[in-house]
Amino acid sequence: MEYETIAAISTPMGEGAIAIVRLSGSEAVEIADRLYKGKQALNSVDSHTIHYGHLIDPDTDEVAEEVMVSLMRGPRTFTREDIVEINCHGGLVSVNRVLELVLRSGARLAEPGEFTKRAFLNGRIDLSQAEAVIDLIRAKTDRAMNVALNQMEGRLSTLIAKLRQQLLETVAHVEVNIDYPEYDAEEMTQNLLTSQLKEVEEEIKSILITARQGKILREGLSTVIVGRPNVGKSSLLNSLVHENKAIVTDVPGTTRDVIEEYVNVRGVPLRLVDTAGIRETEDLVERIGVERSRERLKQADLILLVLNYNDELTDEDKKLFEAVAGMDVIVIVNKTDLDEKLDLSKVKELAEEHPMITTSLKNEEGVDELEKSISELFFAGSVESQDLTYVSNSRHIALLEQSRKTLEDALGAVEAGMPVDMVQIDITRTWELLGEIIGDTVSDSLIDQLFSQFCLGK
Amino acid sequence: MEYETIAAISTPMGEGAIAIVRLSGSEAVEIADRLYKGKQALNSVDSHTIHYGHLIDPDTDEVAEEVMVSLMRGPRTFTREDIVEINCHGGLVSVNRVLELVLRSGARLAEPGEFTKRAFLNGRIDLSQAEAVIDLIRAKTDRAMNVALNQMEGRLSTLIAKLRQQLLETVAHVEVNIDYPEYDAEEMTQNLLTSQLKEVEEEIKSILITARQGKILREGLSTVIVGRPNVGKSSLLNSLVHENKAIVTDVPGTTRDVIEEYVNVRGVPLRLVDTAGIRETEDLVERIGVERSRERLKQADLILLVLNYNDELTDEDKKLFEAVAGMDVIVIVNKTDLDEKLDLSKVKELAEEHPMITTSLKNEEGVDELEKSISELFFAGSVESQDLTYVSNSRHIALLEQSRKTLEDALGAVEAGMPVDMVQIDITRTWELLGEIIGDTVSDSLIDQLFSQFCLGK
Repeated sequence: MEYETIAAISTPMGEGAIAIVRLSGSEAVEIADRLYKGKQALNSVDSHTIHYGHLIDPDTDEVAEEVMVSLMRGPRTFTREDIVEINCHGGLVSVNRVLELVLRSGARLAEPGEFTKRAFLNGRIDLSQAEAVIDLIRAKTDRAMNVALNQMEGRLSTLIAKLRQQLLETVAHVEVNIDYPEYDAEEMTQNLLTSQLKEVEEEIKSILITARQGKILREGLSTVIVGRPNVGKSSLLNSLVHENKAIVTDVPGTTRDVIEEYVNVRGVPLRLVDTAGIRETEDLVERIGVERSRERLKQADLILLVLNYNDELTDEDKKLFEAVAGMDVIVIVNKTDLDEKLDLSKVKELAEEHPMITTSLKNEEGVDELEKSISELFFAGSVESQDLTYVSNSRHIALLEQSRKTLEDALGAVEAGMPVDMVQIDITRTWELLGEIIGDTVSDSLIDQLFSQFCLGK
Repeated sequence: MEYETIAAISTPMGEGAIAIVRLSGSEAVEIADRLYKGKQALNSVDSHTIHYGHLIDPDTDEVAEEVMVSLMRGPRTFTREDIVEINCHGGLVSVNRVLELVLRSGARLAEPGEFTKRAFLNGRIDLSQAEAVIDLIRAKTDRAMNVALNQMEGRLSTLIAKLRQQLLETVAHVEVNIDYPEYDAEEMTQNLLTSQLKEVEEEIKSILITARQGKILREGLSTVIVGRPNVGKSSLLNSLVHENKAIVTDVPGTTRDVIEEYVNVRGVPLRLVDTAGIRETEDLVERIGVERSRERLKQADLILLVLNYNDELTDEDKKLFEAVAGMDVIVIVNKTDLDEKLDLSKVKELAEEHPMITTSLKNEEGVDELEKSISELFFAGSVESQDLTYVSNSRHIALLEQSRKTLEDALGAVEAGMPVDMVQIDITRTWELLGEIIGDTVSDSLIDQLFSQFCLGK
């Protein structure tokens, strides 16, 4: 396929040593050559080589920037098209100037994700691999990056392809039986169908077991710290951030009261919600009555409920326990460096089966236990293996859930002795649903929507 | 010279499509080869070529990242050493993982500016060129980038080298005269010295003419908006930022009350000081009595003094005029959409020779005139040529000023009929001072200090 030549800044915006403007398309080399002045024209050099030179502004004939140009000819490239990467100095003015020159010379500004979209449209990668590219960039922990990397390298794709192949073969078997009913007794068809479909169903189930973890790895375990004023919520936040280094301290474009910070707790990415509120006012508990705060609480994956060892249990504390009923909660009794005034047995009663940790954040005691507790909660009942093929993307999870459902329908139909061509409809539907994961059977609008969530330049 | 192999992340930190970890040093290729798995080992490939492959974690034998590796052998490189650039996915986890692998395999984390420092120490560029590299990255306007680019390409270096050569030749002449006094009359030596030194002095003066502009281009014209509450300071700020797009809206590591924003007004980088204060409280005028605010005012290059067309002149307004006496001021009479209550003739009197602009910021009227006025003020009395060799760096300017002074001393000594070997001391000192600009005669500690201001990875 041939598309317009596109260009974008492919490095993060900001001050750095190097920035890259990337071009992809059949005219990439030609467009770069209109600006580049070096030892030789780029159209005469070998693929996958690097060239020092200058970009000359064609309007003024003046040097616009000192550059290193990398030239890679398709199809051995990320997009399978010709790619030119212009490495310039990493300042905002410099990289914008280079982009502007390239656009003036005939390239079109790339849409978010358009390079990866071309890799997909040109058949180099499938949709789940393309989606993994952005997951890899946004990964908050090593483990999350490994999940994305595996998916990008095609682990999930291979698995999906295998399941679809099994379904196809099942359908083929059934069709043989329809065409030559004398070959097989109806019962045998039933048995064969049941066993083959069950096999596929089991495999889908085993993938879905990794879904909860995969999703958390991808999106972070959204965590809210609650407690009365002065119980040590700020200290807890600071300890977690400090010991684990916040990965993202700011979410661009959001207002201050929903700032989130990511910390990596033993491989579990905690997404700490409303940290600005905690840092500034410690008044979340006062707002607990407000509907909006309650809603936010309910959306959290994990609640860290902090109590004061040096104070008696109040009605407010009890209301907090009520507000988080039914959720994943870790109860933290802080300020054990001070006198015991809290009725611990009563707290234990309220905490029910939730883990309870005692800390003296002031003396840096108990944070280790807390982190251990968080990671245990996360990995509870699951195999902690690097070899698992995780499914982490909500879209994929939903499609797998639907596939499992249509398979169940198919199995039910077989058991009920429905005609095989009725069963076949469910099997085909399952095959299609699985195909959507790898982009084999998706609409253009879905593709557009998926890639629009990418960052610019990818 | 041979140094340890260093490595650093060379792209800005943040989410992007591509990130680069750069290695430089004699073991760069070897270190990369310990991790890289592709079609062939990097030590067997040609210089200036690009290779697709994976980095394998040697501890686990697992794929750590998918990469494109660029290999450039010295001396045809930025540092003159072997350089390996590992292009990986632009996420924080990914790029940190690659850096960590490279460090584990034997590279040392580069100090800020260490790559450029090596380019300097290995003789590829001189000190003024090295300094231009960081100026280029930090440039806030096109013009500032061009100044940095010219300096990086050696324009200032060439000029300095020429002046130093002239001084050397002068000294040589004098020495001939000292050694063979019979050759020349004392008077002729005096004349020769005077004319040659005056020539150099004139050239230094003509470079220094560009210093004010150069410095502003490099550092921005620090601008403070003053005025009573509700005269429209916020609106003025928003108009300037909005029409010209703020280049930097945040200065990392500073507290909120000194936030600065850069806007590019017709090629002049305005550094708007204390914008947070204006945006949030509009109370600068109330703090005008405070010593600290007055001090900050005095440090500004430009004052935008805003008055209310719809209100009478108050004592506060008059105090503002007093506070900014002797500075570059533009008087802005805002709210001309409302009734005239301000005594304009009195304002003109107070404004003296300062430009006065009337605006209705609400109706977006007058901002153009204001911008014109700012650019006129900046370019006043100076040639607006692209061909000028600007001197923009405070260090260079100070050294040029000192050079001019020692030359004056030398000329004074000649006129006073001092012995030529006394004069020679001043000439040699001038030669040394000029040498410091290009790094020919500077101490190691100065070099360390200069490069430490660079960003990481450059």
